[in-house]
Amino acid sequence: MAANPLAKRYASLKALASKDLKSDAVSAELASIITLSMDFVRKRAKLVKLISNVPGKTYAMVALKTGVKTSRPINTALFDFKLTDAELAAVAAGTDIEKIPRPRLDQLLYTAAMSFCVATDLIGEGNKKSPGTFFEIYIGHLVALTLKVNPAKKVVVPTTDAAETDNTLPTDFIFDLGPGKSRIHMPVKTSTRERVVQAWAHQRVLEGMLGAGRYKGVLVVLTETNKQKDVSVVEVCLPGQWRAYQMYIAPMFRVYYLDLPKAYEPLRDQYPFIQIWPFSRFFSEYEQLGKAGP
Amino acid sequence: MAANPLAKRYASLKALASKDLKSDAVSAELASIITLSMDFVRKRAKLVKLISNVPGKTYAMVALKTGVKTSRPINTALFDFKLTDAELAAVAAGTDIEKIPRPRLDQLLYTAAMSFCVATDLIGEGNKKSPGTFFEIYIGHLVALTLKVNPAKKVVVPTTDAAETDNTLPTDFIFDLGPGKSRIHMPVKTSTRERVVQAWAHQRVLEGMLGAGRYKGVLVVLTETNKQKDVSVVEVCLPGQWRAYQMYIAPMFRVYYLDLPKAYEPLRDQYPFIQIWPFSRFFSEYEQLGKAGP
Repeated sequence: MAANPLAKRYASLKALASKDLKSDAVSAELASIITLSMDFVRKRAKLVKLISNVPGKTYAMVALKTGVKTSRPINTALFDFKLTDAELAAVAAGTDIEKIPRPRLDQLLYTAAMSFCVATDLIGEGNKKSPGTFFEIYIGHLVALTLKVNPAKKVVVPTTDAAETDNTLPTDFIFDLGPGKSRIHMPVKTSTRERVVQAWAHQRVLEGMLGAGRYKGVLVVLTETNKQKDVSVVEVCLPGQWRAYQMYIAPMFRVYYLDLPKAYEPLRDQYPFIQIWPFSRFFSEYEQLGKAGP
Repeated sequence: MAANPLAKRYASLKALASKDLKSDAVSAELASIITLSMDFVRKRAKLVKLISNVPGKTYAMVALKTGVKTSRPINTALFDFKLTDAELAAVAAGTDIEKIPRPRLDQLLYTAAMSFCVATDLIGEGNKKSPGTFFEIYIGHLVALTLKVNPAKKVVVPTTDAAETDNTLPTDFIFDLGPGKSRIHMPVKTSTRERVVQAWAHQRVLEGMLGAGRYKGVLVVLTETNKQKDVSVVEVCLPGQWRAYQMYIAPMFRVYYLDLPKAYEPLRDQYPFIQIWPFSRFFSEYEQLGKAGP
């Protein structure tokens, strides 16, 4: 194509999100960028099967019909190429999202999240940050709609010295659920790899500054897939390290994945019992997040 | 040039370092790669002044005489283009390094560290990781020579459950100074930016697993300079965040820089008193690192 048709929409999405993340304007812009991405992928690309090295999961990628570019791996059980524009718009607007039964909701959430990422892989114009920023806005929008409050992206550091002035610390999303409730500290990443320790470290700083349990850590991740030599797919998982971080840095209250890695599922049932679940579960349990206890 | 003359030396350096980091063979290979880098820069590049936005520091870059490639910023007070091969070889071998007076030692250490990084910027063949790996080997070699012990790159995680088997955690350099002494946990980075929190987080895991003070955290960084629009230089510093990490994650015992950022110097004198010093100081105080107390 002559110019990247998604670039303009993406710039508009960023501008709207920074003004009011839970607004109808962001819902509309997300719906528009997601359907545009799906249209592009359907028209210009073909599906190519990949070898899955993950038991029980099948993966494919999309490849440009004319050109050499290919996309990141796509979980074929979760990605629905035939989603209608109306369904995608409903996801973006968070419409009755808690009423959608869970296997279908997983598909809707994953397909909408991957649409722009996959299309950007195929267009491939430099900006590697845009899928990450899109995903952060997409998740932040759905969570803000559900919790009915926009997040902050910094916290005030309490001063312990009269000579000091107030200081603020930049953070991931911070959702303030109001008086008497826990607040939510929510890092959002398309994948984590060795960088995941940042989520636990920032949770530790919040706990140290403001008390244990004041901020509940909720990490949201798209996937941990990695495409090797363009033909096979693995999930890059570090369960031993995650357990050490949960035990020795700070507890994360939930970890949500849009494509939950197989190797992380057992972590729920062994000490320190990291609660790693499909992101769809957030919409049925979000009221717990502001309360005490597990 | 037809092929990258440094690539073969770099591959050889990596292989030798993985076998025995403090060996004479690594000293010789480091000397060879450093002098080759300096030769290349002297012959093929010219010095171009940059606008310094850092009070009291002047910066330049090197630019290919034929071509468009330019290097990262070079602190002109610390980089000595006229260093002889003999001087560079002496640094690489750690020869009498503690006897060299400090302003000169700062120049030797910085010039040798930057040589390969700057040459690689000009050759610019893909491998973005090689300056970081070179710097890690260079620092690890000098520290291992001084402490007379090679580092490990993992620690054993103690198990607290009979059903578990022993687990190891990959880490940065771990120097074991022997019975009755603290061990050194040493992350090495060419620059840190927002990734610096990893150093504190890993220190926290070690303290949590194995007790406060058992491992002393010593972070070694080359520089925090950033070149903007190819003409001016800033130092990217986050002193407020560093203080929060030191207070709430875990204490780092020392932070050493080869080009110490101006904005970090005051952290030594205000709570929590992070001890940030030129790397040259390590060679006069390394015996303290194994002992109790600050």
